This record gives sequence, structure tokens and C-alpha cells, in this order.
Amino acid sequence: MMRIPVVIAGFGHVGQAFFKLAGEKKDICLDRFDLQFEVRAIVTSNGSFVSNEDRDLVEILDMKMKNGADHPSWNPGMTMEDVFEQIERGCLVECTASDAVTGEPARSYIRLALNEGWNVAAAGKRALVLDLPQYRRLSAESGGILKFSGATAAALPAMDILQFSLAGAAILKIEGILNGTSNDILTNIANGVSFSQALTEAQNKGIAEPDPSADVEGWDTASKLLLIANSCLGTSFSLDDIDVEGITGLSEEDVQNRQREGKSVKLIGKIEKKENSHGWSLRVGPEVIGAGHPLYSVSGTEKGMTVLTDTMGSVTVTGGRSNPRGAAAALLKDLINIYRVAQS
Amino acid sequence: MMRIPVVIAGFGHVGQAFFKLAGEKKDICLDRFDLQFEVRAIVTSNGSFVSNEDRDLVEILDMKMKNGADHPSWNPGMTMEDVFEQIERGCLVECTASDAVTGEPARSYIRLALNEGWNVAAAGKRALVLDLPQYRRLSAESGGILKFSGATAAALPAMDILQFSLAGAAILKIEGILNGTSNDILTNIANGVSFSQALTEAQNKGIAEPDPSADVEGWDTASKLLLIANSCLGTSFSLDDIDVEGITGLSEEDVQNRQREGKSVKLIGKIEKKENSHGWSLRVGPEVIGAGHPLYSVSGTEKGMTVLTDTMGSVTVTGGRSNPRGAAAALLKDLINIYRVAQS
Repeated sequence: MMRIPVVIAGFGHVGQAFFKLAGEKKDICLDRFDLQFEVRAIVTSNGSFVSNEDRDLVEILDMKMKNGADHPSWNPGMTMEDVFEQIERGCLVECTASDAVTGEPARSYIRLALNEGWNVAAAGKRALVLDLPQYRRLSAESGGILKFSGATAAALPAMDILQFSLAGAAILKIEGILNGTSNDILTNIANGVSFSQALTEAQNKGIAEPDPSADVEGWDTASKLLLIANSCLGTSFSLDDIDVEGITGLSEEDVQNRQREGKSVKLIGKIEKKENSHGWSLRVGPEVIGAGHPLYSVSGTEKGMTVLTDTMGSVTVTGGRSNPRGAAAALLKDLINIYRVAQS
Repeated sequence: MMRIPVVIAGFGHVGQAFFKLAGEKKDICLDRFDLQFEVRAIVTSNGSFVSNEDRDLVEILDMKMKNGADHPSWNPGMTMEDVFEQIERGCLVECTASDAVTGEPARSYIRLALNEGWNVAAAGKRALVLDLPQYRRLSAESGGILKFSGATAAALPAMDILQFSLAGAAILKIEGILNGTSNDILTNIANGVSFSQALTEAQNKGIAEPDPSADVEGWDTASKLLLIANSCLGTSFSLDDIDVEGITGLSEEDVQNRQREGKSVKLIGKIEKKENSHGWSLRVGPEVIGAGHPLYSVSGTEKGMTVLTDTMGSVTVTGGRSNPRGAAAALLKDLINIYRVAQS
């Protein structure tokens, strides 16, 4: 049995869901994988909880509610650096609600962790969009493994398929519906609802942000596409290299007419081999797809990815829960797969 | 760089496709994974080719055509035991056209290999259907790793999804369209063709055997379902435990009427938690599924699997080439993933 110290950074919806899930799945991790994940610290913006023992969930959540006051394991002002110094090397589970522009604090946390040879499972995109090539170098130097299934499509196993299931095959094209919010809006528009009404409904359901621009203007899809390319194709693209068009300029009537013709308008992120060159073209934009397209029936908040290869034909994966519990399950999967490898 | 001696058992369509693919993918294996697979022996029913060097494909195929006569590396009558004695430990790639009842010679080859601590990538089903629990014990004792992606659904990554992408999740239900031949026949019947005509067409296309009973009576699907259950759920079922019904008893009119109603009749293999117990029920049979079902659009020779989990929702994978080249690609993927793990 391998004991793995775990530090959770950020204790919002995803961090709490992960903490809860890790408790629920203790027996499965031990019985099936001979792994024991022990949450030894939770780092938040105003201090850190550090303990040598597993603590009861209720106690921790209670501590969080009271902002840590009076709990013996609560250390106000304690930073990630301090935590890494106190705890033997293990895995950082990065769940902070990081800044959408700077990617902080996740950016610094991941760098620090990899630098110290910690493994990292990350749920957020921005730090990875900015720094993935640097993280790869740090990993190679320190041996720390970085996984981020949850950052590309929550529980949809997009990265696994590319890195594991298609190992040895040459990727020729990747197409993905990677943003559930815009797909839900398009599905509703196709069924006769106006864009503004569909957006309001998505906001009421809690699946669209008060500022929905990252979703509907295609940048969330572009960020995920970038991570897929840079991690699975060995490229070093930045967002500037992607041709991005959102769904805000679409005519509702056009979307509805396509639906009547048995077709569908989807916001597709696409990575394709350039003709007559070794490079790739990356594009995000609305596309009309027919019933024969593997992503045709991906509707509502569902996501999907289809990959064309040289030897394995076309492989498509769809589904995967995208709420905090789905993201937590993706983090736990990454943890298991990091240490399952180390154990063999 | 890790050099891995490879022994190919069986040199029919799949064995030859694997040998050819391993040659084509030499650079990719080396550049991306730092692995060098070296085919050191090919074992056939009348003798073995053994060499200390990689040989040119043309030469080997030529040797095969001439039944080995006069080639310096050809050893008439040389058995698998002899080969294992001569070559340092590596990986057996099992591609023999084994007996549909006894599973021989694959059954003995895999046992022998695991017993000696060799790793195994297997393409055939029958030996695994009979002996998987025994192979698991041998693996645990000797450290030899057994993978068989190609045996369950060729290039469709069914096993990867269950073992890797859903690690830590509890499986609640698995449904699969796992037999391309019967799915192709059903697709054609739905489009107005008679069963016998659809079967003849499938035979003419080379996708159905002269004796198509394993495909159309559900036993091929049942075998794959068994392997999925026994390897991913830790069960030890035999084929007798599966309730199996094929597609031969279906009314063509009924299939066509369902199609007109916007539904679809599919041969589904299903693994489900029993109510009020810890056990599983395994069933293969035709089912009517609606447009909302994740396998609804899996048509023609395509395959697919959908898995319901506790934490990740429902994940569906479809596609994957199922010709000898697809099977070879699945074998190569298994090899890469076996040694990628060993290398970490």
C-alpha cells in the first residue's frame, strides 16, 4: 500500500467536492489500486489547514464556514511555500478559482509544486494555457507529473483517449464540442428559442456566468483546444494562433432552418493538419454538421470529441458529467493514474 | 531508450498487419515513448522464424510465402517453448487463428508466456474467455502484464475507458454494440433489406464468416461482454452466466417499423447491477432504443459502448477501425502502454 500526502489548493465548489469524494472513495482506492490518499493540507487565500491526520469532513467544512477561527489545525496567513516545507512530497490538487487573465494563484502554485518534484492534478485552465510548455520542462527536470483531465472537459476523457487509447496512432484531425454552455444555447435556439432567452435560461440554470463572453465568444473552447494540442501533439501554440469565432453572430433563423433540414449548428473546436506542410491549423467556430457526423447528437450541455487517426479510424467520445462532482472525479482519476504508474 | 524483444505468434492477417505496423511506427515509438520494439521471432504452426536482428519485411513475407524453405532464420518444427528459451524476456503478441472451442494454441501460448514472466498483448478472444481468471493469477505471480484491447472491440478503446478513464468511479451499467457484423445486418434490415440478403451482403463484403452463427446468434458479443466484466469488474463469469439471444428470431417488418417510428433495433450486450444485491446481470439480446440513447447512431459495422457511473455521469465511446490494421494498432497501443508504465 502506498500512502500519498495530498494538498488541496482552493476550497470552493470543486475543492470541496474533491475533498468529499476522496473520503467516499477511500476504500475503492485502497482495494482496487492499493493507494491511500491522505489530505494533509488545504490552502486557501487567507490561510491553510494543515494536519498530520485525516480529519473528519464535517469538522473541515465547519472550519471553512467559520473561516478557520479557533480550529487547532488552522494557520492564518500560511502560504503554499510554508505548506510544502512542512509536508512530505506528494500530490497537489489545484482547484483555486484563479484569475481569468493572470491565472494566479494557480500559476504560481503549479510552478512551485513541479519545481519541488510534487505531482499535480489541476482543474483550472488559465495557468495551463499560459505556462504548459514551462510546466513540461519543470516536469522533465524534477520528475513531478502534471495531469489536468478536468481542465479540458471535466469527466469527458478527452486527454486519456489522445494520450493513452490512441498511443502509436498518428492524429490527423480532432474536432470537439468542448463548451457545454454554448452547446446548450445552440440546442435551445434550434428548438425555437431566441439567443437572449436561451442565454438567460442558461444563466438561470447556473451553467452560464453573469458575463458569458468566454463561453459564447468561443474563448473557453479555444483554451481547451490549445491544451489538447499542446499536450497531445507536442505543439507550443498560444491563444493568438487560434482563429476564434463565437456563436453571437449567428442568425437564429438560420440555426432553426438547419434543424428543419436535419442538420445541426455546433460550436466546433478543430485541429487539423495543414495541407502541404507539417503544421496544424486550430480553429473555433460555428459549423453546420449533418446526421452522419459523430458529434451530431451531442446536445444540451453535453460535450464530445472525435479524433481521426491513420491506423485506428475515427474514435469518438461523448458525455461525462461536468458539475463540480464530475470535475472532482476527473481529479481523483488523474491522481490514481499518476500513482498507479509510479507503483508498477 | 528501452529495447523490447517481441515474439509474434501467428502470422495470418492480424500477425502480418502487426509486423508491418511495428515497422512503420518504429520512429514514433522511439521519438514519443523512447521504446524500441524488436521483432525477434515469429511462431507459426509449422515452425518459427528466429533472428537476432530486425529483418526486412519483404524478406519475412517472402519466407512466409515459401513456407520458410531455405531461409537462414527459419527453423522448421521449432515451438514456442524453444523460442522462449532462446530469446531474452520481452512481449508476446498473440495473433494465432485459434480454435473457436478449445482456444488453442493461444491458450497454451499465453499461459506459457505469463508463467515465464513475459508480457502479453493478445488479439483473440477464446483463450481469454476460458482462462482469464487463471491468467490473472499467473500475472500476479510472475509480474507479466496481460493486455487485450484488440480482443474486445479492436480499435474501439472499450477497455481503456473502463480501466483508465473511469478509474475510481463505480460502474453502474455498461451497454455495448460489440459486434460489427450483426449491427451491419440490422442496419440493412432497417433500410428494407431481408435478413438473408443482408447476411449474404455481409459475407460478400468479407465481414461475416461462412458460418455466421457466432455473430448473429450473439455469442461473439457475449464473449466480449464476458471479457469486459471479468477484467474490469473483477468478476469470474463464464459464458453460461450470460443470457444470450441473437438477431435471427427478429421480424424484419418489426425492425423496419421501429425505424419508421424513429427508433432502432440493436443487438446490445448489457452488464447491470442487480437490484437488491451486490451481483451483476449479463445479457445479450436485441433491444429497441430511441434517438436519445447514446448508441442510437452507431450504425453499419461501427461499434460502441456506453458506461453509466456514479460520479462521472455517462461516458460513451464509438468508432475505431475493426480490420486487421485496426487490430494491429490496438496491439501496438497495448505494447506501448505496457512499457510506458514499466518505464516510469
